Amino acid sequence: MAQPLKLYFIRHGIAEERQPHLPDQQRALTPKGRQKTQKVAQRLQILGINFEYLQTSPLVRARQTAEILQHQGLVKAIHVSDLLSPEGNWQDWLKWLQDWRTQGLTHLALVGHEPHLSTWAEILVWGQPCQQLVLKKAGMIGLLLPEHHNPIGQSTLFWLTAPKLLL
Amino acid sequence: MAQPLKLYFIRHGIAEERQPHLPDQQRALTPKGRQKTQKVAQRLQILGINFEYLQTSPLVRARQTAEILQHQGLVKAIHVSDLLSPEGNWQDWLKWLQDWRTQGLTHLALVGHEPHLSTWAEILVWGQPCQQLVLKKAGMIGLLLPEHHNPIGQSTLFWLTAPKLLL
Repeated sequence: MAQPLKLYFIRHGIAEERQPHLPDQQRALTPKGRQKTQKVAQRLQILGINFEYLQTSPLVRARQTAEILQHQGLVKAIHVSDLLSPEGNWQDWLKWLQDWRTQGLTHLALVGHEPHLSTWAEILVWGQPCQQLVLKKAGMIGLLLPEHHNPIGQSTLFWLTAPKLLL
Repeated sequence: MAQPLKLYFIRHGIAEERQPHLPDQQRALTPKGRQKTQKVAQRLQILGINFEYLQTSPLVRARQTAEILQHQGLVKAIHVSDLLSPEGNWQDWLKWLQDWRTQGLTHLALVGHEPHLSTWAEILVWGQPCQQLVLKKAGMIGLLLPEHHNPIGQSTLFWLTAPKLLL
């Protein structure tokens, strides 16, 4: 039996535009993206949010977002995982989650990309993806997963916010 | 053709407990409920939120919540409607909405009760009620309804927050 889990999905901040000689995975946060993400992190700290485990996509813009959250003291360590890259898939991540939950931890954050994050949130809450959640860059989703091992269609949504509605 | 519509659902603040000789519709906000609702209203103002029209349930706790929003300058007038009382029903309100939208206004707020508000939001976004949205007292939901007249299952969710995640 797992504990109820607070699961936060955080989208990376505003990143450099795509360019011919810049691989997508190397695109970094822009100065504005870094600044806004920093403000979001400060606000989360003021709100008393913290994570026991943070998993991030390996792409530079996601890792930089995760590092900003870490430097603000929201989490001790960050864990880079290919499961959260744009090529990662829901089934593999779900398997990871089920193993991870056996530890009994209760506050997990993911830093990654759209449309993955909002799609996964919809599957957890409504059992299927509908693409009706608007997750802005540096925005977040908060879900509560129930105490048992199958959270699909059984989780509740308690938070969805864009940075501009948080700052 | 209607304009796209930002629709905010706001749940009344914390109210007096049910008591034998106090009719439910007379239950007022507690001092704590009033104070927290006031803080939410101030925060909404700082975020630049405002409404062109606000419709409230006739119950005292909802009207008082609406008045706090009005006094904070978020809306000019408040409109009391039985459609938003606990006895109001979705189909009647939807008919009202369709008429109201012919004016072309784009920012509408409802102040009312659970489980109505989160259920109606779910119908607009996912086409059916699932009771998976957590709407706390003085919390809010933000939806974007598309430009045409049938918003059911066609609206997007851009905001869901509890007061404690806003203040």
